[in-house]
Amino acid sequence: MKIIVIGASGTIGSSIVSALEKDHQIIKVGYKSGDIQTNINDPASIEEMYKKISAFDALICAAGDGYFGPLSSMTDANFRVSIDGKLMSQVNLVLAGQKYITPKGSFTLTSGSLANDPVPFATSLSAVNAAIDGFVRGAAIELENGIRINSVAPGVVEASPAYFPYFPGHIPATMHQVAQAYVRSALGAQTGQTYTVKG
Amino acid sequence: MKIIVIGASGTIGSSIVSALEKDHQIIKVGYKSGDIQTNINDPASIEEMYKKISAFDALICAAGDGYFGPLSSMTDANFRVSIDGKLMSQVNLVLAGQKYITPKGSFTLTSGSLANDPVPFATSLSAVNAAIDGFVRGAAIELENGIRINSVAPGVVEASPAYFPYFPGHIPATMHQVAQAYVRSALGAQTGQTYTVKG
Repeated sequence: MKIIVIGASGTIGSSIVSALEKDHQIIKVGYKSGDIQTNINDPASIEEMYKKISAFDALICAAGDGYFGPLSSMTDANFRVSIDGKLMSQVNLVLAGQKYITPKGSFTLTSGSLANDPVPFATSLSAVNAAIDGFVRGAAIELENGIRINSVAPGVVEASPAYFPYFPGHIPATMHQVAQAYVRSALGAQTGQTYTVKG
Repeated sequence: MKIIVIGASGTIGSSIVSALEKDHQIIKVGYKSGDIQTNINDPASIEEMYKKISAFDALICAAGDGYFGPLSSMTDANFRVSIDGKLMSQVNLVLAGQKYITPKGSFTLTSGSLANDPVPFATSLSAVNAAIDGFVRGAAIELENGIRINSVAPGVVEASPAYFPYFPGHIPATMHQVAQAYVRSALGAQTGQTYTVKG
């Protein structure tokens, strides 16, 4: 399969590439690295990326930006960092990508366990992660030609120890567990699902 | 209690007012009607509203705007109608309102059953409704002074027959059922909950 991985050089993205590159053609996309550079916060840049790649079988997005900070001083602009950087970027990858993806292809987006399992300072991400899961449920019944869509909702992961203090008592997932959730979405047959990954 | 009802003249808002006005002081807010006019899409207008009202015990928002249309032709701008009109408006009511609400006060937002029970043409609302429920879960553990926050997730309601064709097999909720979900949130003791209303 021809699989686009957005955020291919990231902590999660590089694990996904490792899990898939032996058996599939991987197109690595990054903001500044990879086979193709794309700014996923810009719909025009997304469109340009798809034009370069043309037909593909699966897209996996493991890139996104979010705002961490206390609710008591949060502003509209703070909240929109997560809206634009993690929700609209992934929504726009699907809105544009549905014109290029092959029949029976799949989109796999990244949400996160914060949607249902919040921690302080992450309220905008609880909202945005839940939105991605809701988008996936809605889009799954509208996408045509057997095209599927799922999300992966990682909690804190082994390779990101800087986050551990914000997630007391959360057992970090291994990178193998995380990568396999994306493999399951891309190579499986389900749609409209959220695969939560916990350690 | 002093209760602000945003969207007080609407289909759902007027049922909420009827259920509460005998025992409570209701401040009716609307875009063009009510005791105070506010544009909830404008953070400055929200701040102005709170300054006029000053301290209050509960806020119920039953106003919001959303985009209906097929995913196959949906654009970033279409999707953002729902983001701005239903998500950011309600988020901003909470971000600003946390400075004015009395201790043990409550916020009650409106999401919708589409978050988990999608229908065609409503994908942006599946995302946005889920986001509101996620926001409520996150904010509930950050709000201080015993302040609570919940959402009500109505499905199709009896008083809106124009929507019935888009919800085949959905049994419309009565306006009594819908209004009581808001009453339960505002006068109850739970926080971080989503009250789904089905007929």
